[in-house]
Amino acid sequence: MTEKAVARLAGINVGGPARMAGSADFGLIGLAVMGQNLIMNIGDHGFKVCVFNRTVLKVDRFLGNEAKGNVNIVGAHSIEEFILKLKKPRRIMLLVMAGKPVDDFIETLMENVEKGDIIIDGGNSHFPDTNRRTRALAEKGIRFVGTGVSGGEEGARFGPSLMPGGNEEAWPYIKDIFQSIAAKSDGEPCCDWVGDAGAGHYVKMVHNGIEYGDMQLICEAYDIMKRGLGLSDMEMSDVFAEWNNGVLDSFLIEITRDVLKFNDDDGSPLVEKILDSAGQKGTGKWTAINALDLGMPVTLIGEAVFARCLSSLKQERGRASQLLDGPKPNFKGDKKAFLANLEQALYASKIISYCQGFMLIQNAAKEYKWKLNKPSIALMWRGGCIIRSVFLKDITKAYRTDPDLENLLFDSFFNKAIHNAQEGWRDTVACCAKWGIPTPAFSTALSFYDGYRSKDLPANLLQAQRDYFGAHTFKIKPEHASAKYPEGENNHVNWTGRGGDVSASTYQA
Amino acid sequence: MTEKAVARLAGINVGGPARMAGSADFGLIGLAVMGQNLIMNIGDHGFKVCVFNRTVLKVDRFLGNEAKGNVNIVGAHSIEEFILKLKKPRRIMLLVMAGKPVDDFIETLMENVEKGDIIIDGGNSHFPDTNRRTRALAEKGIRFVGTGVSGGEEGARFGPSLMPGGNEEAWPYIKDIFQSIAAKSDGEPCCDWVGDAGAGHYVKMVHNGIEYGDMQLICEAYDIMKRGLGLSDMEMSDVFAEWNNGVLDSFLIEITRDVLKFNDDDGSPLVEKILDSAGQKGTGKWTAINALDLGMPVTLIGEAVFARCLSSLKQERGRASQLLDGPKPNFKGDKKAFLANLEQALYASKIISYCQGFMLIQNAAKEYKWKLNKPSIALMWRGGCIIRSVFLKDITKAYRTDPDLENLLFDSFFNKAIHNAQEGWRDTVACCAKWGIPTPAFSTALSFYDGYRSKDLPANLLQAQRDYFGAHTFKIKPEHASAKYPEGENNHVNWTGRGGDVSASTYQA
Repeated sequence: MTEKAVARLAGINVGGPARMAGSADFGLIGLAVMGQNLIMNIGDHGFKVCVFNRTVLKVDRFLGNEAKGNVNIVGAHSIEEFILKLKKPRRIMLLVMAGKPVDDFIETLMENVEKGDIIIDGGNSHFPDTNRRTRALAEKGIRFVGTGVSGGEEGARFGPSLMPGGNEEAWPYIKDIFQSIAAKSDGEPCCDWVGDAGAGHYVKMVHNGIEYGDMQLICEAYDIMKRGLGLSDMEMSDVFAEWNNGVLDSFLIEITRDVLKFNDDDGSPLVEKILDSAGQKGTGKWTAINALDLGMPVTLIGEAVFARCLSSLKQERGRASQLLDGPKPNFKGDKKAFLANLEQALYASKIISYCQGFMLIQNAAKEYKWKLNKPSIALMWRGGCIIRSVFLKDITKAYRTDPDLENLLFDSFFNKAIHNAQEGWRDTVACCAKWGIPTPAFSTALSFYDGYRSKDLPANLLQAQRDYFGAHTFKIKPEHASAKYPEGENNHVNWTGRGGDVSASTYQA
Repeated sequence: MTEKAVARLAGINVGGPARMAGSADFGLIGLAVMGQNLIMNIGDHGFKVCVFNRTVLKVDRFLGNEAKGNVNIVGAHSIEEFILKLKKPRRIMLLVMAGKPVDDFIETLMENVEKGDIIIDGGNSHFPDTNRRTRALAEKGIRFVGTGVSGGEEGARFGPSLMPGGNEEAWPYIKDIFQSIAAKSDGEPCCDWVGDAGAGHYVKMVHNGIEYGDMQLICEAYDIMKRGLGLSDMEMSDVFAEWNNGVLDSFLIEITRDVLKFNDDDGSPLVEKILDSAGQKGTGKWTAINALDLGMPVTLIGEAVFARCLSSLKQERGRASQLLDGPKPNFKGDKKAFLANLEQALYASKIISYCQGFMLIQNAAKEYKWKLNKPSIALMWRGGCIIRSVFLKDITKAYRTDPDLENLLFDSFFNKAIHNAQEGWRDTVACCAKWGIPTPAFSTALSFYDGYRSKDLPANLLQAQRDYFGAHTFKIKPEHASAKYPEGENNHVNWTGRGGDVSASTYQA
C-alpha cells in the first residue's frame, strides 16, 4: 500500500479505533531538539520509527534534512496516518511540552488507539500529573508510562539516561528499545523500571534538583576562584580540567572546563559576557517544594533554587551593589593549597547534596508506597544524564553493597571521604564568609553535616518557646522522663504563672 | 424571652434564614485556648459576645468557669440559637482548625445567615482558601473576612495583632471591635485592613514564616553559647536579658531569657530536658513554598523550616552522631567580645530575614494585585504578636519615611546597622564553620547579603552550561551586546561543534 493510500484510508477511520497495523516499532510525537535526537538514536539501533508533529511542516523538514535517507525513519501527516503505521501494541512516545499539551495529545490519541496500546510521556511532567494519567488511562485499557529522559541534546542522540515508571504492564514491550538506546555504564544500560505511577518522573525530578545543586556548587567554586583568587578563565579551565581527573570527574565539570576556554570572536571568554540571570520555574523548584511537603531537609537544592531567584534580580542587585559594602578579598597565601581545599569543599558539599537527594527518595518511597530500587537509580544517573559522574559509580556500589543503607554518609567509602574533606571544606566556608563571597550551597551543606551529626540540636529551646507563647506542648527527652513529664506524652507547662492550662491541641471547635 | 424559648423558636427555623435579631455585638465559634481568650478580651472592651462550640458541653464549662459572672458573655447551644442572639448585620468569627472544619462551619452558617452578614475566619487558613471563600460568599451576599490573629494565648487575652483581609465592605462593621481589642503600639492599634481576598491570611503566613526565622536564629545563638562557649543556662539567660535591652529587644528574646532560667522541680533547667524535635507542617512551610512559587529568595525562612525537619530526625541523628566526626570547639578567647559579635550576627541575620520577608510581600502584592500597605503591616507586627519588637518600630519608621522603599537595606537606619554588624557576623559564621556548630540561618543570611550586593553573580556560567548541554539559550550582558549577540535576545552557541542549531525553546510539538 502506498503512503497516500494509507492516509486516505486513515481519513475514513477518523474518530474510531484504527484497526490496521503498520510496520513501525515505535512512534514519536514532537520534533524539538530532544525529539529529533531521540528518533535518530532509535533509528540507529535498528528500530523503525514513525514521527509526527503538530506543525506538520516540521515532519517534512526533518525527513528532508536530519533524517534524509534514513530507512528506519518514516513520517506521518496526521494522527490517523501515524497510528496506522505502528505495530501493535502501539508504542507511542510524546516529547512535547509538559502540562496541557500532554493532556491534549493524550485526548487526541485516545480517539485512535486500541486497548493494550502504550502511551509514553517523555517530557518533564510533574509526577502528580503522571500519577493521574497512569490511573485514568489504565481504566481505559491503555498502558501509560511517564519516563524521565536526561542527557540534553547529546544524550538524546547518543544515549540518554531513561527513568521509566507508570503501568508496569508496558515494561516488557518497551524494555528492549529503551535499554538499547540508553547510555551504558560499564556495559550496563542506564535505564531500568523505576516504579508505579509517577515514580519515573519523580526520580527524574530529583535528578534535576540534584543537577541544580551540582551546577550551583560549580558556580560557587568558579566565583571563589575568580573573585577570591583572581584567576583568569583559562586558569580556571585548567583547574576544572585537573579536577576532572579526580573524585569530581563528571560531565558538568568537563563542560565547565570547555565553557571557560570558549572564546568569542574578539578572543575573550564568551562566558564573561553572558548575563548572570537564571530561570528556575521548573523541576528544581518542584524538588524543593516536595522536600518541604515531605519534611525532608534537602537544603542544598533549596539554596540552589533560591540562588537562581537572586540571580534573576539583576537590576536590583546593580542598585544594591552601590549601597552595600563588604570586605575586599586580598589573597596572599598558597594558591595550590587553597585550590586543594576548594576541591574538597566542592566534593564534600556534593556528597551532602546526594545524601539529601537519596533521603528524599527514600522518604518518597515510603510516602507514596513505591518500591524504589536505590542501586538502580544510582546506575541510571551514572551515565547518559547531565549529572553523570564517577561519583555515581561509588554511590551505585554503596547501595549494591547494602541496599538498606540508611544514609550515604554511613557507607564506608563516603564516610571516609567526608572526613577527609572536612578540613578544607571548613576553611573554604570560613574564608569566604570573611571575604564577602557568597557560598549559599557550600555553607548550607556544612551546616547540614554539622546538624545531622548532632545528637542534640537546639530545637528543645524552640519547643519550649512554642509551649510558652502558644501552649503547643512539648515532649521530654527519654533520659529525663519522670512521673511529671512521661515519655512520649504532650506536656504543657505554665511558664509564666499567668496563662491557663488549656493547651493548643484543643484548638478546634 | 427566656433562653429556652429562644432555643425552641430556633428549632422551628432550622434550615431557613433566621429573621430575629439579638443583642450580642459579636459571635464567636470555637472554644480552644485562642477562642476563649479572645472572647474574654472582647468582653473586657464592652462588647457583648455570644459563644458557641461544636462540643456544646464546652460552652457550659466555659460559661461556668472562665466566663462566670461576666455579663458580656452569653452562650448558645445550637447554631440557630447562636444566630438569634446576634445583632444584624451579624458578625460571626470562626476560631476552628484550618481546612475542612472552616468549610463545614461556613456551610452550616450559610443555612442560617442573611444577606449582609459577616463571617470571619480567624484561624491559620491558607490564603488560597481565603481567596476562594471570599469570592464564593460574596456571590451569595455574605461578606467574608480572613484575619490573621497572632500573639498566642496572652496576645488573644490582652491584645493580639490582627491582620484582616477579604471583603472590604465588612471592614466598617468590624473595625471598632477589632481595633479596640488589638494590641496598641505607642497608642496605635496593631490592626488595620490589609487588603482584598486572602491578603490578611497571606500577611499572617509571612509573619509566621518570619517567626520561624526569628526562633531559628535564637536557637543558633543558644547553641553557639552552649556548645561553643560552654555557658550555663543561667548565664545564657543573662545574655538574653542584656540583649533584650538593646537592638534585639523583643518578645521572643524576652521569653528565651525566661525559659532558660525556668527550673524543673530538681532545680535543673527544664529546657535541657525537652526533646529537640520540632514540627513544621504549617505556615512556615507555606511561606517557603510561596517564596519558591514567586521566585523570591527567602532563604532564611527556608533554612528555618528545613532546620525543623532535621531536628525531627532525632533517632537518625543519634546514629549519625556515632559515625560522623567533627572538630571540638575549644574556646580560649574573650567571651565578652565573642558575645558582642554573636549579638551582631543575630541582629544582622534578623535584618536580612525581614528584608527577605518584605521582598516577598512586595512581590505578592504585584502578583496577586493587592494594595498592601507596608508601614501598616510593620505596625501590625509591632505589638501583640509573637514577633513584636523594637526592631519593627524601626521598620515602620523606614516605610513611613519612604513607602516606596525598594529594599529595607536601602533605608539609612538599616543600611548603617548592617554595615556596623557585618564584621561580628562574619567572624561568628567563620568561627562556627571551623568549630563544627551548625548555623544554617546565620550562614544563609550572610550568603544572601553577599549575593544581593554582588553586581555580578556566577549565574553566567550556569547559563552557559545550560546552553551547552540543553540548548537552553542565554542572554548577553548589555555592555557586551554585539551584532552577533544582540541585547535582550535568546542566543544559542554550538559550544562543541557537534550539536545542532535547534534550540530548546522549540521543545514543543
